Amino acid sequence: MPDYASMEKAQLQEEYQKLCDIYSDYKARNLSLNMARGKPGAEQVALSNGMLYVIPYNDSFKGEDCPDVRNYGGLDGIIEAKRIFADMLGVEPKNIFVGGNSSLNMMFDTIACLMEQGAGDIPWNKQEKIKFLCPVPGYDRHFGVTQYFGIEMINVPMTENGPDMDVVEKLVSEDPSIKGIWCVPKYSNPQGITYSDETVRRFAALKPAAKDFRIMWDNAYIIHDINDTPDSLLNIFDEAKKNGTEDMIFEFCSTSKITFPGAGVAAIAASENNMALLRKRYNFQTIGYDKMNMYRHALYFKNLDGVMKHMKKHRAVLEPRFNMVLDILDKELSGVAKWTKPNGGYFVSVDVPEGCAKKVVALCKEAGVILTGAGATYPYGNDPHDSNIRIAPTYPPIEELSLAMEVFCVSVKIAAIEKMATAIPPALDGGLRLPKA
Amino acid sequence: MPDYASMEKAQLQEEYQKLCDIYSDYKARNLSLNMARGKPGAEQVALSNGMLYVIPYNDSFKGEDCPDVRNYGGLDGIIEAKRIFADMLGVEPKNIFVGGNSSLNMMFDTIACLMEQGAGDIPWNKQEKIKFLCPVPGYDRHFGVTQYFGIEMINVPMTENGPDMDVVEKLVSEDPSIKGIWCVPKYSNPQGITYSDETVRRFAALKPAAKDFRIMWDNAYIIHDINDTPDSLLNIFDEAKKNGTEDMIFEFCSTSKITFPGAGVAAIAASENNMALLRKRYNFQTIGYDKMNMYRHALYFKNLDGVMKHMKKHRAVLEPRFNMVLDILDKELSGVAKWTKPNGGYFVSVDVPEGCAKKVVALCKEAGVILTGAGATYPYGNDPHDSNIRIAPTYPPIEELSLAMEVFCVSVKIAAIEKMATAIPPALDGGLRLPKA
Repeated sequence: MPDYASMEKAQLQEEYQKLCDIYSDYKARNLSLNMARGKPGAEQVALSNGMLYVIPYNDSFKGEDCPDVRNYGGLDGIIEAKRIFADMLGVEPKNIFVGGNSSLNMMFDTIACLMEQGAGDIPWNKQEKIKFLCPVPGYDRHFGVTQYFGIEMINVPMTENGPDMDVVEKLVSEDPSIKGIWCVPKYSNPQGITYSDETVRRFAALKPAAKDFRIMWDNAYIIHDINDTPDSLLNIFDEAKKNGTEDMIFEFCSTSKITFPGAGVAAIAASENNMALLRKRYNFQTIGYDKMNMYRHALYFKNLDGVMKHMKKHRAVLEPRFNMVLDILDKELSGVAKWTKPNGGYFVSVDVPEGCAKKVVALCKEAGVILTGAGATYPYGNDPHDSNIRIAPTYPPIEELSLAMEVFCVSVKIAAIEKMATAIPPALDGGLRLPKA
Repeated sequence: MPDYASMEKAQLQEEYQKLCDIYSDYKARNLSLNMARGKPGAEQVALSNGMLYVIPYNDSFKGEDCPDVRNYGGLDGIIEAKRIFADMLGVEPKNIFVGGNSSLNMMFDTIACLMEQGAGDIPWNKQEKIKFLCPVPGYDRHFGVTQYFGIEMINVPMTENGPDMDVVEKLVSEDPSIKGIWCVPKYSNPQGITYSDETVRRFAALKPAAKDFRIMWDNAYIIHDINDTPDSLLNIFDEAKKNGTEDMIFEFCSTSKITFPGAGVAAIAASENNMALLRKRYNFQTIGYDKMNMYRHALYFKNLDGVMKHMKKHRAVLEPRFNMVLDILDKELSGVAKWTKPNGGYFVSVDVPEGCAKKVVALCKEAGVILTGAGATYPYGNDPHDSNIRIAPTYPPIEELSLAMEVFCVSVKIAAIEKMATAIPPALDGGLRLPKA
């Protein structure tokens, strides 16, 4: 890897020219590639087609605790589905509420529930300004939900062990207007970091000034390993029990990245008090979610073991993709950018030189490669360092993935040199040129 | 039919004794019958089993406007589903938002949206006390939603042409805190009344004092005829166009009582402004609803014509049930109670003598027949006349339905005589006795 910082002016100019030529060549190819969202690819989606055929003719459609899964009723889901989620999350079936096709929707509804009903004496929307902690970089859709409800967001830096718990503990113990925190505790979005045992224990032992403080524990990637060295995560409810803090936690998960992204089943794990809180709202909101789809999932997988076997098939699709992305980054961007090497999840998080992320995303877009918007991994879309970019390697056909990554790498290098140029003498700067639009 | 009012004291006493004996016999049978909810019966639910097998192996899962119905995306649904709902409701597909398995959930979310975003300058939840008009008797779950959000409910009497429009027009034109009205315009719940053309036209021409007033037009039974003389309902959006009031209307429907009650597809019809309003919320709430289920419905029915043919099968199941209920009422309760004779929908609404409804429901319950709670058809569960009872004849096996109706009728007669007894000399009252518990 060339070390731009130690290059002579002429050498840097030459390197820059070379990169611009490569970039122009890519641009001339009129590419249309997308690495924007954590969206399973066609091969992954097809892994679950068998689920569509598990319902036999003349089936009674009887569930263990449901006379007819096709009919109305069963507000919090059928026991067969509850059991699988309970085993996955390490809780009892009575602590599971099975919902529709979207855990995001359940998170949104949970925040809405807390806004209107509250989790204490006063509903959140009847209190003065309230705030949420947002570990950054994080998941844009979490930030979108809090922003929709007018909740102020406060950045908390991520470390390799999860959110900086010194900061979290200090803020929540001092400020009673802080009502919650968004967490993706395993293979975090976008960094792929799994919270350390100490981090989970400190979360379970939090003593917030707000008695109605809630942890939104979005365990979206709980069984989504992509290699032979998977991370392990402590069960936060086990730790919470030791501290009597079970009511502080709402845990979310879904089969969106297990079966069909748009037609999976989502669930919440919660204490009995919190289940009662949710039921109070859901009881008005719906008669119940789609039990046929729960039933279909339960018949297909039978139990957690069936799910875990299925996840191996996803891993077989994803591992080579992540390896390819990481190999290209190693080869092209060592010394220029930094990135995470996750053992699971859906993303690689790349930190390009400060002030370059927007430029990189724009260059990629101009060359036909769509990335998640720069800043998307921060509340209000505002990355203070303009540095973090989320790479989602799952969706493009694999033959296009390497091409997309090459465009990304050349864009990062161009942006990096241009950025340096603004910090070095005008003579050099004058010698640089932007690629033609 | 005996005319209790004109009976001699001794004769009435004898009649009462006879009824109590019949009631006791029913009670001794330890029945367990349910006419509480508008829940399709087993035979109806099975009509749609074929829908589970329309997705062929090796299907591409491609929709016309969707590259893969299994994957994420498509916030407001696939065009194939939109088209069927659009034809059903008489609007354009662009005015349709297809959701999950529950129109109740979409109504709840719409009210939540108006609470938080509003439909004018100020969100509903930022205004002083707001109110909703509730035609009575009406649907308990509508009232539940408004009550959940703390919206005050005002009763509006139903007439045989729909809500009393003189009352509606007066109230909405005078009081800007009245923000909306719940309507089931066709085969209303529970009376089975279809709004007259004049009623629909007057709704479309409303000039509410509140600029953010909304009509919740729950067209749950739009194609749910049960005999050869179906009602017809004007298309409210056609009328609204003539008045420029399209933004005043949200229309709801679903396939819950077409395919599977718990696993159907729901939809909203709305003006472009209202669609934008909804999308603003849904865009944060979800990535999109279950497109596989939309696709399954679309493949099965192909078009509205397919749906209409399917509805004939429901009618074949329902018509004899409604006829049985009405025949028994005619035979047993003429002169004692009043009821509607609907041409569609899911209910028969019975008005028992004033002050008797709670007693009738309690007597039925004691004899093992569950009815919708007395008062449920009124906001706050408060029927000022304690008179209205909703009969739902669809769910019990047909051989049990006549039995349940007989228990109902004897209970009405007992309650009616007891009520009379409180208004006649104590001597007679002393001669009456309640059936033993």
